[in-house]
Formats: sequence, structure tokens, C-alpha cells
Amino acid sequence: MRISELARATDVPVATVKYYLREGLVPPGRLTSSTQAQYDDEHVARLRLVRALLGPARLTIAQVRGVLAAVDEPEPDLFVTLGRAQHATAPATEAADPSPALALIARAGWDVDPAGPEVAQVADALAALDAAGFAMPGANVDAYLEGVGRIAASEIDNLPEGSAAEAVRYAVLGTILIEPLLLALRRVAHQHAARRRLGGPSS
Amino acid sequence: MRISELARATDVPVATVKYYLREGLVPPGRLTSSTQAQYDDEHVARLRLVRALLGPARLTIAQVRGVLAAVDEPEPDLFVTLGRAQHATAPATEAADPSPALALIARAGWDVDPAGPEVAQVADALAALDAAGFAMPGANVDAYLEGVGRIAASEIDNLPEGSAAEAVRYAVLGTILIEPLLLALRRVAHQHAARRRLGGPSS
Repeated sequence: MRISELARATDVPVATVKYYLREGLVPPGRLTSSTQAQYDDEHVARLRLVRALLGPARLTIAQVRGVLAAVDEPEPDLFVTLGRAQHATAPATEAADPSPALALIARAGWDVDPAGPEVAQVADALAALDAAGFAMPGANVDAYLEGVGRIAASEIDNLPEGSAAEAVRYAVLGTILIEPLLLALRRVAHQHAARRRLGGPSS
Repeated sequence: MRISELARATDVPVATVKYYLREGLVPPGRLTSSTQAQYDDEHVARLRLVRALLGPARLTIAQVRGVLAAVDEPEPDLFVTLGRAQHATAPATEAADPSPALALIARAGWDVDPAGPEVAQVADALAALDAAGFAMPGANVDAYLEGVGRIAASEIDNLPEGSAAEAVRYAVLGTILIEPLLLALRRVAHQHAARRRLGGPSS
């Protein structure tokens, strides 16, 4: 298909498609003349992924490049490929003391890289709680580990078994785009639980 | 205590304390002369709350005002007071179709205000997933509702029973400051689950 058809098939403006091509986020088409190129279904799939990562997932161009590098040059080990893609999307962290994070992870019995960005993210979050003088009730900590563990186990159980690209897409979009959903559901569930405990007016 | 002692007790610079006083986020002290005022433990508690809301929780001044209004003028019904405080911290939402959100909440069996900002947040998150063409496996949806339900139930079970101010502080800080922790723990738990499923190298 021509670039105009690629744009129509993905609902992305031609100017944006050209921008992604210039930035190397979408591979070039097959040249059929000095001014025309042909695109195929792989370009459609790639364009949809890029648009989702830059749009709803709000990644930067640099983060998208990192995800695509993992897709395009998968390691023989899918675990390593997924790790590379996930690290590309990790928020920047400050260098908080990792000990409380490692204690929490040990409490959950999780086997993870203690030097990875995920552990640094937990350390940052715990440092912010500490700075605010907020002490988590121990029962809540257990609920966090169990609730999050239940969620993550289901997500990894349902990792698609096809190509590395498909697994990376599921893992990256599924991590980032589900985050606002989980936070919103928690606020809804608070309201339900508070109504039960405090006897608020039923709706 | 004098303003310099209040600043020292809370580790907030005097200039910042004066700014909060001017903005009405901290109530004025008791005047002891035309240029001096005395502050007490309530000022210390208020200053710590304001600092946590503006600092680690990253609320805007307008959002902090909304939370403090709920603290300062609690409704006779704590459920209503908590709702007011939580609404003050709700992210802005777009007007996504609420039907898929209401279907999800019905699936969980949660009794909540269908017109509230929490439901609008769920609607926005589902619309972003849809825009990205990301289909959630049904087993994951069940895990989200169960995992989040477990977390929220524990948090509301541990709501402090003292003053409305104490309950609001716990609910607001506990909602906002725990959010980054839950997201970071989910990424850690992904790594643990992926290592188990894909047999990545143990760390």
C-alpha cells in the first residue's frame, strides 16, 4: 500500500507517518520509484504500536526507541528481552536507600534483580512515604504484596506465546496502560469499602 | 512557640511557613504583640500535612485547599467528609463514555456513585486502552478487581477511628502516596512472575 493508504489504515495523519519514518520509529517502505514506496501489514502493526506508546502510554520518543530496540533485536531469552523493554519505560528514580525496598521484597518472597530500576522505584516510593511521616499499617503492607502479586501473576500467566514482538507489546502496553486503570479502580473500591464500614448513603 | 521555632520543629524554612500563612493553608497564630504571634502543636501538625501534600504527594495549592476544607469543616457523616477530601485530589478527567466502567464495577459488585470522579477516572483509563487497541484478557480483569478490592478493603479496615482530620490525613496521603508504591511493586512482581514462567537466570 502507499503512504496515504497506510495513513488511512491506521488513522494516523500522513505528516505524522512521515515524522515517524524520519525518526526511524517505523522502518522505510520498499521503494518502487524515486518518489514512491510501498508499505505492508508489518508497517501497519508497527505504526499502531508507536502511536499507542506515544499517545495513551505517553512515552517519550527516546523511551519508544528503547522499546522498539527490544522488539527489533530480541535476545534469545524472552525474559531478557522483556526486561530490556520494561527498563526502557521505567520512570527516572532518585538514589533512595534500597534497604527498605529489599526488605519488603524479601517479605513477599520475590526473586528479582536487587540492582534493577524496579527496586529503585520501590525505594523512591518508600522514601516519599517516610518524608511525609506516613506509617503504613502492617496489614496494609501484606495486602499490597498479596494484591499486587495476584495481579502480576495473572498478567504473566496470560503473556502471549507467539513472537517476541507480540510478548513485548503485551508487556509494555499492559504495564503502562493498566496503571491508571488500577489506580482508578482502587479509588472506586475505597468508596465501596468506606460505604460498607461507615454506612454512607447507598447510591 | 514563635514562627522560628515552628519552622525548626517542622523542618520547613521560615519563608515557606510565611507563604503558607499568606495562602491561608496554615491558620494564623495568636498575636502577642503587633509583630509577634505564637503557634502551637496544631500548627505543627497542619504544617506537616501541608508539606506532605505539596511535596511528596505533589498536589496543587488548589487541591490542598480542597483537602483542608474537608478537614476544617467536616460533615457530620465521615463518609461524606472523606469523599470531599478524595474528590479534591482526583485527577482531571475527559468525558469518556462511562458504560464500560460501570460494567466493570458491576462485575466487581461495588456500590459506588456512578456519577463520581472515580468512575470517570476508570472510564478514561478504559478509553485509553481501547484507543491503543489493547484487549485485556478476562482473567486479568478478574485479578484486577480481586487484587485491588483486597488492597482497598484492608486500607479502609485500618482507617484511624480518631478525629475526622486524622481520618482524612490517612485517606488522602494513603491514597496518593501509596500509588507509586503499588505501581513499582507491580513491576517488581512482574519480574518475579516472568522469571518463574520463562526461567530467566536467578539473581
